[in-house]
Amino acid sequence: MTPARIAAAVAAQRPLVQRLLDGVAEIGADPPGITRDAFGPGENQAQALVAEAARGLGLVLASDAAANLAMTWPGADRSAPRLMIGSHLDSVLHGGNFDGAAGVLAGLAAIAALRGLGLRPRQDITLLATRCEEAVWFQLGLIGSRAALGLLPVAALGLPRTGTGRSLADHIRDCGGEPEALAAGTRLIEPATVRAFLEVHIEQAPQLVEADAAIAVCTGIPGNIRHPRIRITGEDAHVGLPRRFRRDAALAGADLALALEALWREEEVAGRAMACTIGRFHTLADRHAMTVVPGGFEMSLDLRAYEAGHLAALEQRLHGIVARIAAARGVTIDLGERNAGAVGQMDPGIRAGLADAAARLGIAQHPLGSPASHDAADFAAAGIPTGMLLVRNRNGSHNPHEEMETADLMAAIAVLAVWLAEAGCEAA
Amino acid sequence: MTPARIAAAVAAQRPLVQRLLDGVAEIGADPPGITRDAFGPGENQAQALVAEAARGLGLVLASDAAANLAMTWPGADRSAPRLMIGSHLDSVLHGGNFDGAAGVLAGLAAIAALRGLGLRPRQDITLLATRCEEAVWFQLGLIGSRAALGLLPVAALGLPRTGTGRSLADHIRDCGGEPEALAAGTRLIEPATVRAFLEVHIEQAPQLVEADAAIAVCTGIPGNIRHPRIRITGEDAHVGLPRRFRRDAALAGADLALALEALWREEEVAGRAMACTIGRFHTLADRHAMTVVPGGFEMSLDLRAYEAGHLAALEQRLHGIVARIAAARGVTIDLGERNAGAVGQMDPGIRAGLADAAARLGIAQHPLGSPASHDAADFAAAGIPTGMLLVRNRNGSHNPHEEMETADLMAAIAVLAVWLAEAGCEAA
Repeated sequence: MTPARIAAAVAAQRPLVQRLLDGVAEIGADPPGITRDAFGPGENQAQALVAEAARGLGLVLASDAAANLAMTWPGADRSAPRLMIGSHLDSVLHGGNFDGAAGVLAGLAAIAALRGLGLRPRQDITLLATRCEEAVWFQLGLIGSRAALGLLPVAALGLPRTGTGRSLADHIRDCGGEPEALAAGTRLIEPATVRAFLEVHIEQAPQLVEADAAIAVCTGIPGNIRHPRIRITGEDAHVGLPRRFRRDAALAGADLALALEALWREEEVAGRAMACTIGRFHTLADRHAMTVVPGGFEMSLDLRAYEAGHLAALEQRLHGIVARIAAARGVTIDLGERNAGAVGQMDPGIRAGLADAAARLGIAQHPLGSPASHDAADFAAAGIPTGMLLVRNRNGSHNPHEEMETADLMAAIAVLAVWLAEAGCEAA
Repeated sequence: MTPARIAAAVAAQRPLVQRLLDGVAEIGADPPGITRDAFGPGENQAQALVAEAARGLGLVLASDAAANLAMTWPGADRSAPRLMIGSHLDSVLHGGNFDGAAGVLAGLAAIAALRGLGLRPRQDITLLATRCEEAVWFQLGLIGSRAALGLLPVAALGLPRTGTGRSLADHIRDCGGEPEALAAGTRLIEPATVRAFLEVHIEQAPQLVEADAAIAVCTGIPGNIRHPRIRITGEDAHVGLPRRFRRDAALAGADLALALEALWREEEVAGRAMACTIGRFHTLADRHAMTVVPGGFEMSLDLRAYEAGHLAALEQRLHGIVARIAAARGVTIDLGERNAGAVGQMDPGIRAGLADAAARLGIAQHPLGSPASHDAADFAAAGIPTGMLLVRNRNGSHNPHEEMETADLMAAIAVLAVWLAEAGCEAA
């Protein structure tokens, strides 16, 4: 089967892809942007739409204890380690339509194309639509894939969801899952049974626009350290308090934000890729006022890097910066809860295979470290050989202006289909 | 009448002072701290308590169109320019008991002492309990005194109150005032009819603790420029967006806060007193999330100085800083509404008289610029000779830990009473 024939079969699936993209957009419509709430109506309806399309392709559906949806194209040898592809169906609040969902639809289209060519898999090919990849819902990301791979801390089941305030356990149960079965370390997917995991995902920055390439073969996924709720405590005081007496928690927060940005700049200059994001950064709504020196401040922190050693070094730097600012401002800085996401190593063989497929298809490809975390990182952390394709996006992600040319997505699907055909299919 | 006799008569009023302090504390009890809401039950009940005590002293009560309460001890010559004393009865949210109320009670106690000595005023002595001095209620301070002196912008009548969302006009009407009569420039108090205005107020910083003095004769009240709601607009973006693409509104806010603090430090070194407070400083609660680079940010600003020229120069510096940060961060910074409070010059003759009275009473006094704004600033701005006494406070104001020794307040009342006796009383 030549790459060109596979590419033509993929191109024929463009109406399916467009119909599904439109379908999930309609489900998530929440101007400005798209909201598909995790373990809620948005994600549920998107899952139902995808399930219906999968049934139409003859795939075998199964829902696991975390309510992830597995859609399997059964292979000739059902006991052989399977190939998995997939991504997530939830979104952030008022985000874009492609972050997550495009990767699930890509898997459907690739399978449809290969089936249409009369191929059949030598082993199972399972398309996985994971739950709740976005951290906005429970202040913890990658929940579906973590749960599937036994990486979810049990305590996470008690986390309250944004918008509803109800626990993750309750939400999982509502969606047909079994939270009781999600004891930490219990694997719903046994890594030894998976030969490879591939994820297609929109790029979350305009680096492919800069590079003038439709897609990227991902070179690595950063690990992260997250503090969802850092609390700074100084002292509320009258606007008339002279500077020398003040213990201004907001200025301590400003110090911390800018010190971390300076650290990032320094690391960039040294050629060590990292990122630092402070998404929530605020005085306390029930206490702050124009004429009160703020004694309370809260902020979130997401710190990421591509190597475990680098991440650990950055965390040490963070602790030093925090101690210095707390002393200088006369405030206490409590970093609070700490969540860590493992660095996701991309498998060299898969990377080479994807790059080779792109080259043979004549598709412009540019190797790129993913700046964002992804479900794929959990599969890599579980020891499963993992690869990712990133799709060009002019306007960044997690915002209503996220943008993906369907042609670029079709290019990624073609590469995915070629890879699947060569790695795991045969003539029927 | 010797200062010593007046001091003894004031000391005899300590039970009255304590009873009234306890009374307003009970009215405002709102743990942690005290809340007496302006143009609401807290301020109304405190006004009623004070009115009852004033009636007990035989004072003549009158409420004006802004629902300020005037309590007059009629003089021998009722047409002569009167002496006014007073302060406010509202508080911030969860503030202390003394900010404002102590000055009103001080006036009652001084009058009670002078009456007890058989003195009578040559002209009216009016104790004024103003409304809504605190800016937290309508994002605009000194509302009662501004209204009384024709300094209230008409547009302020439409401002919504914290907590109720109802307009200032509605609140004034509820409290028996006549908002329709408060056209800008219409004076409820004609400055030419007032010979002097004196305010006793708790200090809002621990400078008198540092100076080991019970009271301060105030040397000046700063004017201020306020921007209640500065809006910074960048672009919401995914946590994975590399630094070079980001337009982070929160980091622009951090830049602005720290640049203004650096300006303050610089001015201090140069010996030019000022203050800068950013009380509200926050990402947007309906959009911010741990994994979204914040594209929106809001903050308040209160900038103050003791000379009009200095304040104007600082405002120019502010505009320069804002332009520089907006360009560097790729964001827009909209300063929004601008409110200005005039610099309050203290009358040299009154300052000397108060200092002299303190010296003759043997009361430790330390001259101090008020770091905070006060009703007295409006009287000074209206051209009325104005003076202030500040009372020692270990823990700053606008917080639940505000602290005043009753002995220190009694010292201020003694100075006030001596000044009133010598400036405007005679034997009955």
